[in-house]
Amino acid sequence: MAASHRRPVPLSRAYRLLNHGPTVLVSAAHGEQRNIMAAAWAMPLDFEPPKVAVVLDKSTWTRQLLEATGTFVLNVPCVAQADIVQAVGSTSGLELSQGQGQDKFATYGLETFVGEVVDAPLLEGCVAWLECRLLPEPHTQQTYDLFLAEVVSAQADERVFSDGRWHFEGHDELRTLHHVAGGNFLTIGDPVAGKPLDA
Amino acid sequence: MAASHRRPVPLSRAYRLLNHGPTVLVSAAHGEQRNIMAAAWAMPLDFEPPKVAVVLDKSTWTRQLLEATGTFVLNVPCVAQADIVQAVGSTSGLELSQGQGQDKFATYGLETFVGEVVDAPLLEGCVAWLECRLLPEPHTQQTYDLFLAEVVSAQADERVFSDGRWHFEGHDELRTLHHVAGGNFLTIGDPVAGKPLDA
Repeated sequence: MAASHRRPVPLSRAYRLLNHGPTVLVSAAHGEQRNIMAAAWAMPLDFEPPKVAVVLDKSTWTRQLLEATGTFVLNVPCVAQADIVQAVGSTSGLELSQGQGQDKFATYGLETFVGEVVDAPLLEGCVAWLECRLLPEPHTQQTYDLFLAEVVSAQADERVFSDGRWHFEGHDELRTLHHVAGGNFLTIGDPVAGKPLDA
Repeated sequence: MAASHRRPVPLSRAYRLLNHGPTVLVSAAHGEQRNIMAAAWAMPLDFEPPKVAVVLDKSTWTRQLLEATGTFVLNVPCVAQADIVQAVGSTSGLELSQGQGQDKFATYGLETFVGEVVDAPLLEGCVAWLECRLLPEPHTQQTYDLFLAEVVSAQADERVFSDGRWHFEGHDELRTLHHVAGGNFLTIGDPVAGKPLDA
């Protein structure tokens, strides 16, 4: 199972997990409640200590949970999980919980594992995980729905990320997803290197 | 030439130009001075009016220029421009100007065209352009090197973006670039759609 492929990523390299702009799944937990949502708008904010920025709409339950605890996880999903990303990105965890009495994890049979630092669940089958601690900026959060955080622990699937680099060749099902619109994604493609230009 | 393929993008769809996480080139101009730099850390911030967020290090000349004028352009480069992205991302426009007496555009023979709204130059050969007006947030800029802006005009190359969607099939040279590290990029890949999951 995927657990055997998970390896810690040094914090100095954690920004590289988001550098290429993948869609992420944001998970948070508070007490007995937990939720996970899709977010196309996330990016690195600093190298070391690594920081991230993510946009979370006021209507989302995940935002309520992470505002309550001050921690969350950015899970980086892959092609094999496109249906999961679409499902958790188009349903309300709060409505599910209030209506059916079970959260998105139970509803969609999502397996999780426990993080190194934070309480939010980490989603099995993703290719990277960044555990984050909120950097409280009330004005930015309220005005722009923008949340800044420090990455306090990071892991990745060594089949596609090692020595600080993504390498997806031979693992098409593990390529990251990049949201276009309405549940349509582009997968990440192949390497290209910039060569020096004559000045 | 590329000019014939440029089409306006409705502001309500402008966020889709950055939704999939491409590396961008940030250009700015102030008086007779102009510069362009690479930035992997840019993302949409809101739908309509469209807003963006971009990280700009304090050491960059582009940042000085855009702080002076309050406007800038996010140019979205493509595979055919990988060498240009690497070049403008690894040199200092200020040093070039002070040393050789010419800016990056002259040094590397970069062609530009005039925007619809702002003074910053738009780079020929890119696949999308977002003209932006800074939303001044001194604390966020100073503490996190994070700049927020409203998109006031947007264009894209109709060969790969039309009706609000990217479609790169048949145009591998026009695929967007997604930075890994050190001048190494991944190109954007192929479409995949999420299907509804049984609850």
